[in-house]
Amino acid sequence: MTFAADAALRRAEVLVGYGPYLELIPDYLDGREVVRSEMMKEVERCRLALAMAADGRTVALVSGGDPGIYAMAGLVLEMAREGNHPGPIEIVPGLAALNSCAARLGAPLMHDFAAISLSDLLTPWEVIERRLQAAAMADFVTVIYNPKSKRRSEHIVRARDIFLAARAPETPVGIVTAATRAEETIVVTDLHRLLDHPITMQSTVLIGNSQTFSWNELMITPRGYQRKYRL
Amino acid sequence: MTFAADAALRRAEVLVGYGPYLELIPDYLDGREVVRSEMMKEVERCRLALAMAADGRTVALVSGGDPGIYAMAGLVLEMAREGNHPGPIEIVPGLAALNSCAARLGAPLMHDFAAISLSDLLTPWEVIERRLQAAAMADFVTVIYNPKSKRRSEHIVRARDIFLAARAPETPVGIVTAATRAEETIVVTDLHRLLDHPITMQSTVLIGNSQTFSWNELMITPRGYQRKYRL
Repeated sequence: MTFAADAALRRAEVLVGYGPYLELIPDYLDGREVVRSEMMKEVERCRLALAMAADGRTVALVSGGDPGIYAMAGLVLEMAREGNHPGPIEIVPGLAALNSCAARLGAPLMHDFAAISLSDLLTPWEVIERRLQAAAMADFVTVIYNPKSKRRSEHIVRARDIFLAARAPETPVGIVTAATRAEETIVVTDLHRLLDHPITMQSTVLIGNSQTFSWNELMITPRGYQRKYRL
Repeated sequence: MTFAADAALRRAEVLVGYGPYLELIPDYLDGREVVRSEMMKEVERCRLALAMAADGRTVALVSGGDPGIYAMAGLVLEMAREGNHPGPIEIVPGLAALNSCAARLGAPLMHDFAAISLSDLLTPWEVIERRLQAAAMADFVTVIYNPKSKRRSEHIVRARDIFLAARAPETPVGIVTAATRAEETIVVTDLHRLLDHPITMQSTVLIGNSQTFSWNELMITPRGYQRKYRL
């Protein structure tokens, strides 16, 4: 957590968020009104937060990771625009899964990368597949969000096939599950063996580029210094 | 800054970093050995930090943004491997330019995105151009790092041309310069007018996808809720 997020939570009179995320910040719940929302209820959650803010209350809409990366910042601004919300609305950035998972894995994001969510709940699968193809072909390090859900296990298989068509089977792959939580697990494997390891709704998968190597259970993508300098 | 970065700086006996970054954290300099390094001296900086750590001292190698995104984490691990460094080495993630700039611009990173550096100091321009083409064609929101330097002003022109061939001239574009610093500037414009605004070495440029819109000087990329739900 950043100092700025801490200050925003302290300033807030009301916290609104997905229940399990609020349980991660017990120290901030005392003395504040707390509205616990359910999964899939994002529209209601934003509507409530905006209504309370329009009533003059200071509301923190709590997001895991970075609210600005595949998270609540967009929906709340879309709805503020629809409803001509008087504002102000401040987006407080945080550490996204890609920041935290990259740190746990060593240094996979030293070169150009793409972030792609495999969830087709709000995006047609054809669009997702086109992006996987483009990322694989252009040698982007690729961060895969939402690789699997309870009802959806084939997308990560398809993603792996797309990358295997463009990259060596030995390409390093990292799987970080429940990053920064007590139950965090970290696996460094490769494209060939990617599907042999547990992947859950809470996993983020990082696929190296053609230069990425592994060392001591870490993934390192060279920035390119070794081309110019003797290390 | 995160609480974890604060704790790491407090634990350190020695701080090593690029001079201007160290000046951003004056409160941590007192009572610690401070080694100010110059720009372009990354290899020497890492070598020194690793040598001091191998001597048993607790060293913080200070990076701006997130050390794990186009920054020092990779080089220090590459050199640790070359030199069989005894470790341990911990990578402490931070807010990268993409996190901070996205927050300043509203919510541009709500959907799949690519990060591409236009610096050809360590990467052949052909590789960069291929990635720009792929990102433009597959409709990635695109974060452009190092859009310009003193000796390099044509790359951003070429990048804009590539995106204009695939996306509407009205596509929203954000330019954030010196993010989070006192002299920070934020511009929301579009692809057509991108080159009419100042872009410097300290700028990050965010190009929206085909769905991104602007509102109140903000950029918003819809996550897709409006397809399924009435906002």
